[in-house]
Amino acid sequence: MDNKQDNTSSNTQYSLSDHTATQPITVTSPLLPDLELLIPMLKDIWSSKWITNMGSYHERLEQALADYLGVEYISLFTNGTLPLITAFQALGLNRGEVITTPFSFVATTHSIWWNGLKPVFVDIDPKTGNIDPEKIEQAITPETVAIMPVHVYGCPCDTKRIDELARRHRLKVIYDAAHVFGVRNGDGSSVLQAGDISTVSFHATKVFNTIEGGALICRTKEMKQKIDHLKNFGFEDEVTVVAPGINSKMDEVRSAYGLINLQQVDTAISKRKHTADIYTERLKNAKGIRLFPYMTEPTFKWNYAYYPIFVEAEEYGMSRDELYRKLRENGILGRRYFYPLISTFEPYRHYPSASADNLPIATRLAQEVICLPMHHNLTDDEAEKIVSVIVGR
Amino acid sequence: MDNKQDNTSSNTQYSLSDHTATQPITVTSPLLPDLELLIPMLKDIWSSKWITNMGSYHERLEQALADYLGVEYISLFTNGTLPLITAFQALGLNRGEVITTPFSFVATTHSIWWNGLKPVFVDIDPKTGNIDPEKIEQAITPETVAIMPVHVYGCPCDTKRIDELARRHRLKVIYDAAHVFGVRNGDGSSVLQAGDISTVSFHATKVFNTIEGGALICRTKEMKQKIDHLKNFGFEDEVTVVAPGINSKMDEVRSAYGLINLQQVDTAISKRKHTADIYTERLKNAKGIRLFPYMTEPTFKWNYAYYPIFVEAEEYGMSRDELYRKLRENGILGRRYFYPLISTFEPYRHYPSASADNLPIATRLAQEVICLPMHHNLTDDEAEKIVSVIVGR
Repeated sequence: MDNKQDNTSSNTQYSLSDHTATQPITVTSPLLPDLELLIPMLKDIWSSKWITNMGSYHERLEQALADYLGVEYISLFTNGTLPLITAFQALGLNRGEVITTPFSFVATTHSIWWNGLKPVFVDIDPKTGNIDPEKIEQAITPETVAIMPVHVYGCPCDTKRIDELARRHRLKVIYDAAHVFGVRNGDGSSVLQAGDISTVSFHATKVFNTIEGGALICRTKEMKQKIDHLKNFGFEDEVTVVAPGINSKMDEVRSAYGLINLQQVDTAISKRKHTADIYTERLKNAKGIRLFPYMTEPTFKWNYAYYPIFVEAEEYGMSRDELYRKLRENGILGRRYFYPLISTFEPYRHYPSASADNLPIATRLAQEVICLPMHHNLTDDEAEKIVSVIVGR
Repeated sequence: MDNKQDNTSSNTQYSLSDHTATQPITVTSPLLPDLELLIPMLKDIWSSKWITNMGSYHERLEQALADYLGVEYISLFTNGTLPLITAFQALGLNRGEVITTPFSFVATTHSIWWNGLKPVFVDIDPKTGNIDPEKIEQAITPETVAIMPVHVYGCPCDTKRIDELARRHRLKVIYDAAHVFGVRNGDGSSVLQAGDISTVSFHATKVFNTIEGGALICRTKEMKQKIDHLKNFGFEDEVTVVAPGINSKMDEVRSAYGLINLQQVDTAISKRKHTADIYTERLKNAKGIRLFPYMTEPTFKWNYAYYPIFVEAEEYGMSRDELYRKLRENGILGRRYFYPLISTFEPYRHYPSASADNLPIATRLAQEVICLPMHHNLTDDEAEKIVSVIVGR
């Protein structure tokens, strides 16, 4: 049940090893729209009889998200994976190598595979978990066609440097921006304007959710139109199919759900920040527990999408997996995220770039990381309990 | 707006050429669950905080559908396209030729393309619109790995013959069963038990819908397990990814919606039958209008998914497109479905098998067909109006 647990934060199928009667503290909890606000919208959708295929709620949510995120062109998708797959197709990429990170959710690399492209893994920056631009440059070959970085845990990549080197080498850049909903660069600009395309996820576990959902963000009207065709089977009009598009349509019910959630997402992010501040204050000097520098000294507007800690086993006196189990025994469901590295999974481990020797920092971080419970519903008492278990008091 | 119109049956963006004030008669209308029944389920889902990732409503809908459809193993999907794509992956098919029909919705062939397979189009049976088993056998080469027939408009293919020839030639069979929800063979057995895998669609326009949705039906527990991994990124357990799976998860809200709709689908099919009986009675002897023989003499339990008529231009005195426009001018939205043939679309027209010479019957039917309005909400007066426009009285 761990996978379900980690992905849904539901309590129902969880059983603690010590059979404690209390509910466990889940790693995430979905932001839910008030049903009193949703029901009138459902009535409106029912009476229109337009329940999917780019209806009015779909259009309204696209506009509202463009405004909120500070981007011009956004296309809604039914989940967070299909935008990744469609991004390559939209850019016409179907052969060659894509430089990417192993320190991400597996969908990142799956999207490369589904487009007939070859993933080339490079190592990450130990201070952020993001792909290391230096390593990108070293991995470029005549076969390279694109770079797919991930803004890990909501921390923006060094997009200026990555975009600059991409231009220099004439490569496309697709940012897997699943984690950076609402994040702004230090200068207030949107992280989602970097590269050629950014993809976001609105899965239940994300800062903003439409139950399942996602979107592509691009830079021109023409590209948005192409993406909108691709997410609807490649239909350009009723009688013209221009490409083998996949149905990726977001429906009206989830669009309405998203419109309501968008109204409360800033409040939810504030609550996340409050919990993160407790964690940081109590853990920043904890022996054997390492935080990313941006967690104590933010240089950008973070969304607190995740709260990773890194367990230095020798110094801490306990391995990451031991602490993970100790937390569970205390009714606290952390998540080893990202672990294992994508490069170690069966479909990808045969690539030369997948070897641990090539990825020492990612390999270490994957062995050390626990994402602590992080959502808008955590109480101060719960946060205190969590840090107490970690610091052993 | 035609494509939206055809796919959603919404009225909102429709404007008639003669600016009539009355609402048009749409080609489909989604079966909607009673909100009074849905709201308590939403409250239950909200309180569980388990909103996707194979929760309890997902499990209940899978079980209820297995019972209703008379099949043992079914896996829910987020829409009707991803089951098609995943079916090939589940059977391990990623190179070679797939024999299929051009007379279908374009997603059928897209799913072949996405798996790196080559579609080989063969012609159809003029009496059903289904793929012609004779033509399948003629098209088999050493490269052939699978057959993908479609049960067009809800009429079952000659599954015995197709499955027999597949066994003989050691080919896999994936039935695109998007149209046959609830259809039974003459002997009462489920159409969905034929072949290796069947894929169904629960799109808004279908006999049974979950807004967007679909499913794979297979024959063994092991295959269902494999499919369930593939629809969840290939996760076998929390730390093991066995294949590049695509997220295709159906969420809890749409599962609840489906549970309610399943209770009323038989009534909806009865209403469809009532309208179909009016159409058949009034059109079976209409000059220049051809029906499929099964529409007047059914040899199986039909679901009345669509009501196609075929316009024999010379005999009728008007082309199909002229009648299509005449219907629109009278506020009746028919649908030229399937038209154009998949084999004529840009991604596929270069294949030798895509030539009109190779597909004379499909080419003719695509030029002649109009699907008349067909849904559970049509009134007798509307049905009468529609046939009156067609027969010119």
